[in-house]
Amino acid sequence: MIDANFEEMNSRSVSNIIQLGGTILKTARCEAFRTAAGRQQAYDHVKAAGIDALIAIGGDGTFSGAEIFSREFTIPVVCIPGTIDNDLYGSDFTLGFDTATNTVIEAIDKIRDTAASHDRLFFVEVMGRDSGCIALNAGIAGGAEAILLPEKATGIQALCSQLESAAKSKKSSTIVIVAEGEENGGAYNVAKEVKQRFDFYDTKVTILGHLQRGGSPSSFDRVLASRLGYAAVRHLLAGQTRIMVGLRGNEIKTTPLEEVLNKKVFKLSEDMLEMMEVLSI
Amino acid sequence: MIDANFEEMNSRSVSNIIQLGGTILKTARCEAFRTAAGRQQAYDHVKAAGIDALIAIGGDGTFSGAEIFSREFTIPVVCIPGTIDNDLYGSDFTLGFDTATNTVIEAIDKIRDTAASHDRLFFVEVMGRDSGCIALNAGIAGGAEAILLPEKATGIQALCSQLESAAKSKKSSTIVIVAEGEENGGAYNVAKEVKQRFDFYDTKVTILGHLQRGGSPSSFDRVLASRLGYAAVRHLLAGQTRIMVGLRGNEIKTTPLEEVLNKKVFKLSEDMLEMMEVLSI
Amino acid sequence: MIDANFEEMNSRSVSNIIQLGGTILKTARCEAFRTAAGRQQAYDHVKAAGIDALIAIGGDGTFSGAEIFSREFTIPVVCIPGTIDNDLYGSDFTLGFDTATNTVIEAIDKIRDTAASHDRLFFVEVMGRDSGCIALNAGIAGGAEAILLPEKATGIQALCSQLESAAKSKKSSTIVIVAEGEENGGAYNVAKEVKQRFDFYDTKVTILGHLQRGGSPSSFDRVLASRLGYAAVRHLLAGQTRIMVGLRGNEIKTTPLEEVLNKKVFKLSEDMLEMMEVLSI
Amino acid sequence: MIDANFEEMNSRSVSNIIQLGGTILKTARCEAFRTAAGRQQAYDHVKAAGIDALIAIGGDGTFSGAEIFSREFTIPVVCIPGTIDNDLYGSDFTLGFDTATNTVIEAIDKIRDTAASHDRLFFVEVMGRDSGCIALNAGIAGGAEAILLPEKATGIQALCSQLESAAKSKKSSTIVIVAEGEENGGAYNVAKEVKQRFDFYDTKVTILGHLQRGGSPSSFDRVLASRLGYAAVRHLLAGQTRIMVGLRGNEIKTTPLEEVLNKKVFKLSEDMLEMMEVLSI
Repeated sequence: MIDANFEEMNSRSVSNIIQLGGTILKTARCEAFRTAAGRQQAYDHVKAAGIDALIAIGGDGTFSGAEIFSREFTIPVVCIPGTIDNDLYGSDFTLGFDTATNTVIEAIDKIRDTAASHDRLFFVEVMGRDSGCIALNAGIAGGAEAILLPEKATGIQALCSQLESAAKSKKSSTIVIVAEGEENGGAYNVAKEVKQRFDFYDTKVTILGHLQRGGSPSSFDRVLASRLGYAAVRHLLAGQTRIMVGLRGNEIKTTPLEEVLNKKVFKLSEDMLEMMEVLSI
Repeated sequence: MIDANFEEMNSRSVSNIIQLGGTILKTARCEAFRTAAGRQQAYDHVKAAGIDALIAIGGDGTFSGAEIFSREFTIPVVCIPGTIDNDLYGSDFTLGFDTATNTVIEAIDKIRDTAASHDRLFFVEVMGRDSGCIALNAGIAGGAEAILLPEKATGIQALCSQLESAAKSKKSSTIVIVAEGEENGGAYNVAKEVKQRFDFYDTKVTILGHLQRGGSPSSFDRVLASRLGYAAVRHLLAGQTRIMVGLRGNEIKTTPLEEVLNKKVFKLSEDMLEMMEVLSI
Repeated sequence: MIDANFEEMNSRSVSNIIQLGGTILKTARCEAFRTAAGRQQAYDHVKAAGIDALIAIGGDGTFSGAEIFSREFTIPVVCIPGTIDNDLYGSDFTLGFDTATNTVIEAIDKIRDTAASHDRLFFVEVMGRDSGCIALNAGIAGGAEAILLPEKATGIQALCSQLESAAKSKKSSTIVIVAEGEENGGAYNVAKEVKQRFDFYDTKVTILGHLQRGGSPSSFDRVLASRLGYAAVRHLLAGQTRIMVGLRGNEIKTTPLEEVLNKKVFKLSEDMLEMMEVLSI
Repeated sequence: MIDANFEEMNSRSVSNIIQLGGTILKTARCEAFRTAAGRQQAYDHVKAAGIDALIAIGGDGTFSGAEIFSREFTIPVVCIPGTIDNDLYGSDFTLGFDTATNTVIEAIDKIRDTAASHDRLFFVEVMGRDSGCIALNAGIAGGAEAILLPEKATGIQALCSQLESAAKSKKSSTIVIVAEGEENGGAYNVAKEVKQRFDFYDTKVTILGHLQRGGSPSSFDRVLASRLGYAAVRHLLAGQTRIMVGLRGNEIKTTPLEEVLNKKVFKLSEDMLEMMEVLSI
């Protein structure tokens, strides 16, 4: 918007892209948009281009910008939750989370194939600076022996106790999922600390990194994206603004953007946290 | 149970199977279980083996049998919804549906790759004798031009009109998803009928068949299976019986088995049916 | 060429496409190119566009056209073997074969997951009108119990004998791969005939169809494509024409186009045919 | 063999495993086998179990052990090349290499999806301490902008020059494949060094680690494994020993084990190394 770099999209230009990862419109952080001058320029371009409403896809940062912009220039805005971390209020799931989690479990499955001796520990670092959603879901789905989350302090000592009991139950391999935002400094550090305590372990580290952000979207994400996009347009046509469309239960619902931005969300199901404890023993 | 063919399962025997399709306990239809004598024999074996509760995983047929068995012998039973058709009351999703739908969209994605001329029509037959859930979800997620469902009569004539308008909008290829239970007799018949009306089309048929029933489960299905299994055990321990555990919203809830068996369910979201109409024009 | 519909390609326009199935240049059969007038028009357009050499990717049909065109207008042509059937002389493998075979074995793997009773027969129809390469390779790689090939007559009676001995050895499921060009008329017919003889079998049919032609190419195909493309350009620069570049052993070699077009090829390894016999008993 | 831990395998026990990664027989390094006493004990157990020949699957280490054992106790041994590094003399390809390379390119494809700004550099570390086969093949197949190999010194300075020209050609993203055995100390170190020189780059690192060793084998690997296993048994039956069976061209050939162990191999095709240079400019 700041560069007046618009691309008209219609049913033909968006044909045959539903199966692709990434974004055909590109994306970038933008410092200028944080300034009043930058937003004014953006609005001038938007107005000149005859655009009368915006749909913003992203997370907290995107929504804050969209909310300010909408208030400053009274342009209608509807937001769509798109972040692999699944850390937004108002939608049970955010776009990208299901695809990312599937990518992680495919990695865990492959790593488990090579686990064949009792003295080997695998540490897999997954995304999630503030949210353990990917780690918890992929850890349960991948059958991990331990999961380190940002939401829950698990010291190295406690982890080592878990690993010792896993070893005693003669599990043939042990996989530990490490969310990047957990308190011990990530998979490399955790592996190093554990190694110092259990020298007989051969520790192996995998850092999945940005491969979790790409790939052909899963069916769940494609259906969710289609439903959210459809709902966003309908709500704009109906005159609504400053809302986020989201999935609640199996229905598309709206939440005021202000609420989305202000309410804390805790997306880790209690039953899954309990299971995590049970499985780690 | 009728053959006293039991296999004890513990944390070691179920280790390293979460990533596998199919069932390690095997499954089969059983005529004898429909008779009182058969069920008596099953109960005698169950009792002799010291089994004091059952968890039944399946759909309508499984649940009916479990319900009768539980009433006849006052043995606690908790059911888990496991059918790729997603056609059960009491759970937003059933186990296997997400995996099957992902398998279908991978197939659609591959078929679309080869679509390069304007005169080619692809018909993909997917599972669903009475339920169009897979067809509708995979059709939206795969970007299909038309979707034929069991729940909705779409005559050949109406389909042809859709295809004509798709051709006019110069779409470079056209994929039609056909649920096996739709009214026109399946993909081969539909393709034949369309071919008779539009001779210039080159029609191609793919029958996915049983490959939709296998494959490594998706993250969604693995997490759901873990949560449902955990809930089933807890509810049995708490003394509950003749219930089904299911996912509603993002929580695990229970429904009386009787209700599950008697209530009609319509799992096709209105907004998705609307989208289907919009996209087909 | 006949429509003067050219697209200039450079290192930027071909960036980020190596992972895609299909073709960004589109492809089509062309009746006009079979006529002298059509080829003259094509040549006029090629000349006017300043194109001084051609690289043709395809199979027999493409190569015949390229060979005639090259002779008629003395324009240099190098051919690249691109057909999933792997039925060309002069190259151990053709582009697309490895990807297609991987697609087929993923399907077989999924089908096998659901095989859980002794009385179920799965028939999977794969591509190959005149070549059993996909069927033989995917059959071996998928652990199929029987494989029907175009190159080898296997009557229904002989197949039934194989299935009987498989049943006797108590295999828990049986998968039969049927190349579309085998003598009995394809998977549906074979299934019907077998069903008539063994009524107790539940027969299931999967027709993979065009999904074998798409999908992200395998590493093998991408490396082969890169090497063949690189070699094609180098040979053109070196003044060569009317050759096909191909993989022989682990090296890129050339073969005169005339030889490619005239020599019969039999790509089914003797040891694999032997294994097929051994495994089917 | 040292623990007399044998498992009899027949056509039923190996049924339904062709699609699995890892090994059902387990594998482990064994210090005792390096001693004469250990080998004697192994031989006593082998003899007592009525085993009259061995098939050893692995790389250099496995083959050395097998060779010594075979000479010391005149027991027939045939070796099968099984290592993802593809670094053995006598076979164009080793088991696991194709599967591992496919795993790497799937990761690269996903990483590339997220590449959307000009100032982002992705470093992907792949296996290969002494062999750049995976790095070179996956780099070409994944369209990487630069590839660091153990066989070829590419200093940070040279890499930076490449990256600068890539940036100038306005490539929208840059992926560098780093074989773990290259001279600069792995992906993390390379990323750090580059970051020091080009501060404006946002560098991201993915360490694939052991996920490259698992996963369902590719069609190529399954067919190769079947052919090599079949050939190994036949050669043993024909009285041969101390040979390795391997793929050369498209045929299964044998090589004396001594030759395999003593001959240097260079598996990087010249044309691919040339291509790597061309593509990096």
